[in-house]
Amino acid sequence: MRLSHYFLPVLKETPAEAQIVSHRLMLRAGLIRQEAAGIYAWLPLGIRVLNKIKAIVHEEMNRAGAIEILMPTLQSAELWRESGRYDDYGKEMLRIKDRHDRDLLYGPTNEEMVTEIFRAYVRSYKQLPLNLYHTQWKFRDEVRPRFGVMRGREFLMKDAYSFDIDARAARRAYNRMYVAYLRTFARMGLKSIPMRAEAGPIGGDLSHEFIVLAETGESQVYCHKDLLDMPIPNEDTDFHGDLESIVRARTELYAATEDVHDSARFEKEVPPEKRLSARGIEVGQVFYFGTKYSAPMKAVVTGPDGKEVPVEMGSYGIGVSRLVGAIIEACHDDAGIIWPVSVAPFRVALINLKSGDVATDKACESLYSRLTTAGIETLYDDTDERPGAKFATADLIGIPYQLVVGPRGLSAGNVEIKVRATGAKHEMPADAAVEYLVQGN
Amino acid sequence: MRLSHYFLPVLKETPAEAQIVSHRLMLRAGLIRQEAAGIYAWLPLGIRVLNKIKAIVHEEMNRAGAIEILMPTLQSAELWRESGRYDDYGKEMLRIKDRHDRDLLYGPTNEEMVTEIFRAYVRSYKQLPLNLYHTQWKFRDEVRPRFGVMRGREFLMKDAYSFDIDARAARRAYNRMYVAYLRTFARMGLKSIPMRAEAGPIGGDLSHEFIVLAETGESQVYCHKDLLDMPIPNEDTDFHGDLESIVRARTELYAATEDVHDSARFEKEVPPEKRLSARGIEVGQVFYFGTKYSAPMKAVVTGPDGKEVPVEMGSYGIGVSRLVGAIIEACHDDAGIIWPVSVAPFRVALINLKSGDVATDKACESLYSRLTTAGIETLYDDTDERPGAKFATADLIGIPYQLVVGPRGLSAGNVEIKVRATGAKHEMPADAAVEYLVQGN
Repeated sequence: MRLSHYFLPVLKETPAEAQIVSHRLMLRAGLIRQEAAGIYAWLPLGIRVLNKIKAIVHEEMNRAGAIEILMPTLQSAELWRESGRYDDYGKEMLRIKDRHDRDLLYGPTNEEMVTEIFRAYVRSYKQLPLNLYHTQWKFRDEVRPRFGVMRGREFLMKDAYSFDIDARAARRAYNRMYVAYLRTFARMGLKSIPMRAEAGPIGGDLSHEFIVLAETGESQVYCHKDLLDMPIPNEDTDFHGDLESIVRARTELYAATEDVHDSARFEKEVPPEKRLSARGIEVGQVFYFGTKYSAPMKAVVTGPDGKEVPVEMGSYGIGVSRLVGAIIEACHDDAGIIWPVSVAPFRVALINLKSGDVATDKACESLYSRLTTAGIETLYDDTDERPGAKFATADLIGIPYQLVVGPRGLSAGNVEIKVRATGAKHEMPADAAVEYLVQGN
Repeated sequence: MRLSHYFLPVLKETPAEAQIVSHRLMLRAGLIRQEAAGIYAWLPLGIRVLNKIKAIVHEEMNRAGAIEILMPTLQSAELWRESGRYDDYGKEMLRIKDRHDRDLLYGPTNEEMVTEIFRAYVRSYKQLPLNLYHTQWKFRDEVRPRFGVMRGREFLMKDAYSFDIDARAARRAYNRMYVAYLRTFARMGLKSIPMRAEAGPIGGDLSHEFIVLAETGESQVYCHKDLLDMPIPNEDTDFHGDLESIVRARTELYAATEDVHDSARFEKEVPPEKRLSARGIEVGQVFYFGTKYSAPMKAVVTGPDGKEVPVEMGSYGIGVSRLVGAIIEACHDDAGIIWPVSVAPFRVALINLKSGDVATDKACESLYSRLTTAGIETLYDDTDERPGAKFATADLIGIPYQLVVGPRGLSAGNVEIKVRATGAKHEMPADAAVEYLVQGN
């Protein structure tokens, strides 16, 4: 993409309303624009990141055997009356009346609807296990939306729902999502730690939050340091097999958010040198809640013994739009964002230090053409800005590799690659630079 | 995907509420489920088709130089008061009050919001031309939603918005979308005909509807038959160049929907043997409306002469969810759907005629593995159903190629490929079948 043909409205000033660094950087780097309190439009750079995060989430859901569907944003109030949550949910639920005065609501979550879908079609344990997921916009009418996309009102969430014949099978379904989440966040360059959590309004008796550590995190968390260094299950992990050992190795170690933290237990179970207390951001949560929805909503299946039982369920959320903010909280410096390669809006920022100079333009055009032909997403800064402004923009928007081309380097036969994360600079001939960037060093 | 692990709730009976063939087939083939009047959940097969249609639309938008963004579903009423449409829009607009009693609405379209985004960042003609598009769920509170996704209330639309310095440049922007639309629909296996149309509630003085012919179409259309046989601009089309000749070759020929049809002109301009009168379905519409929104909303840019002028705008819609229905209306027979390959949920249905038979299972597993490794999306019917039921399902859900494997064929060293669209059957060895399917014959 040529910057001269792109829409990248970076801001020079830091917006006064943004209290946390990810919100500030998302506004300054032209990722989002607020359209109403807690409601954002995603600008070109922002939607590219959002799409990449969503793609990683979906790949890992599919790998774990979950099946994509897509439920609508608006739901009938009737469904929520069946589960008993319509009155419970309070003012965070956005309630709507249509032209015929029927009660609708903007879905804050989808347990009821997916249970309705399940019960309409599934009759037998032979059709289980089943895990259906979707990524859809949701709405929670927060009384005080803030922190940009970290606590917005309209937000994008991936939510998966598992259906099993009994508690044992449901536990296996829970483990599959638990392991999929470890992989998902790791692929985004994040170190996530599953922590025992309260189930809250979803209900149920087993739940983990996946927490990313960041100095600016929203809540205090406490855990055993070994959780930080455990290997991530690789992509050949057999999701049909037994994942209990992977999960148990983690759940055996103390890890809790401040809501459920027990300092006596923490000190008893964790040796002093292994105690970690830090700030964290929740990026996902998994729940096992048994028959909380299937029983009242009569989602029953026939078991091997011919008897009908309510299906055992769990739900599994990932805050897709929230992750954009969480990744920035974990990956930035004073100059701006430092995107992990896997979610970066572009892999390479090609910086022309002297637009209009024939040799420099020619070298840039050649590099741009070779990189894009090789499938490397490249943002080519072909504008008339001064080099300093171009560097500042590239740093701010956090493209992993800057490929810098100017008359002086070219006369020595070289271009320069700057690695955004480390600041390391490498001079090399153009051919070597293309090879370096295509190989993904 | 193994059918035994999939979620494909096909219905044996034709649902009584469905009046048109696409609605009936979408329910029977397990593509969608109604969750409220005019509000649908997309089941696994349905979301696969929807995703493919969206991907084609985006590829062609990008090719034509449009830039992806994503605007939220909910909008502030304030914006629509600025343009004057808040009161005009009537009961089709779903109006919402949040917990603080602020007026929101579920966006039926995004002219106002995109104009607000534009005016916040763009000041100079040097930043033009600009075309921003997004694909987002929208809501129109139809008094009588019907025909499934063809006239739903919550629907997925791609809408693009162009911004130009003057009417001439705006016309070029209009032509780029016009040509992109020809390519987009052709890639989905559809023959679309652009027809002069009324601008309706969007406003403006130049508009074309893109109509797909189908016997069951919603409206009568009239056009010159030569429009059916014009070549589609190829993928090397230079969207920076002059597209006027491509557009003019079409607009010179008579083509009108019944709303604007002029039978005297039709008979005068079109020789009798070239007159076509048929049923059609609208799948997209393009509008040039000049300064209708930019003037009241003060979206102005400085021109080369230093003077501020309101920007010239157009908007360009494609009914992404509607297209699923439209494609089925155009592509089906008595047995079910006939998906064009480019939008098919799977390319190949692998049918095991005797699950449990060792040799047949082994042959199927090998084919399944080879096809998926080659990147061919394959739905493997590994269930215990009778062959007749498997054939009926494969026909119903419309997978382009059926790869049929049974003991009798195997003993002669053969498998069978059935082409869903033509019914043609080809016996060949397994190796040749894989080659046939991978090559995309």
